[in-house]
Amino acid sequence: MIEPAAIQDHYPDEFAVCYGCGRLNAHGLHVRSVRDGDGSVAFFTPRPEHTAVPGFVYGGLLASLVDCHAIGTAAAAVERADGREVGDAPAPRFVTASLHVEFLAPTPLGPPLELRAHVVEVTARKSVIVVSVVAAGVTTATGRVVAVRMPESMTNRHPRPAP
Amino acid sequence: MIEPAAIQDHYPDEFAVCYGCGRLNAHGLHVRSVRDGDGSVAFFTPRPEHTAVPGFVYGGLLASLVDCHAIGTAAAAVERADGREVGDAPAPRFVTASLHVEFLAPTPLGPPLELRAHVVEVTARKSVIVVSVVAAGVTTATGRVVAVRMPESMTNRHPRPAP
Repeated sequence: MIEPAAIQDHYPDEFAVCYGCGRLNAHGLHVRSVRDGDGSVAFFTPRPEHTAVPGFVYGGLLASLVDCHAIGTAAAAVERADGREVGDAPAPRFVTASLHVEFLAPTPLGPPLELRAHVVEVTARKSVIVVSVVAAGVTTATGRVVAVRMPESMTNRHPRPAP
Repeated sequence: MIEPAAIQDHYPDEFAVCYGCGRLNAHGLHVRSVRDGDGSVAFFTPRPEHTAVPGFVYGGLLASLVDCHAIGTAAAAVERADGREVGDAPAPRFVTASLHVEFLAPTPLGPPLELRAHVVEVTARKSVIVVSVVAAGVTTATGRVVAVRMPESMTNRHPRPAP
């Protein structure tokens, strides 16, 4: 099966080093968000070390997944609003202004997690994205992310991808 | 210099496997929260791979640090309220019900981060902890965590530490 292209596949190289979703970060999580209807979906199987207490997934990992998946979803929504398909041009890069995760139930460590996201608000200044985390058919966490376009101050610090 | 004992040093072994703060998680972040006045403080130097965009720290990492530092702070506050010092008994174990991080400014990747936390609300059901993240003298993020005592359903799943 050919894997569908992810939104993050189209981040420009210099912004594809994110620990959560950068394809060029050798140590990272490699979150991959794929457009699905009005939103996007991602799947992620936590590693054994991503534990909170034995048998359950670490909340900081879930927050990380929510964050990157939401940011990718925000980028895709802008492309769609501009009449482009993901991949037509380098994806616009958002950063996180606010990240809020509610942990509804312990997330079992083992099964792949499904993350679903959609944009609930767009203004010139920001996008608001909601995300649900589903494990073995149960929604165990929900997230709300406020994403803003990356400020100029973050774009010219180091010209090359790292690490 | 002898490092001061951290709150997490006193988590019972079976709950010391957290990716964020478990001393027994070989792959984890090893957040160490030390009591300081009414709250607690932690220092953490992000690794080169903990990047968002080049030169700046990944928000998911900051969320993870905020999470574990807040949970440790909640545990210490209960001990203090019960008239115990950290280390007198195994620390009570909290889990995160809600994690909210506001990213105020990009966090530079390089300098050690200082996290300061204190408890702002305690009820029988929950504790609310606020955290600030300071990099090179600038508060770059603030967090608010709702912590609850670990439910029974999370305590009897796997008797041994993992991974």
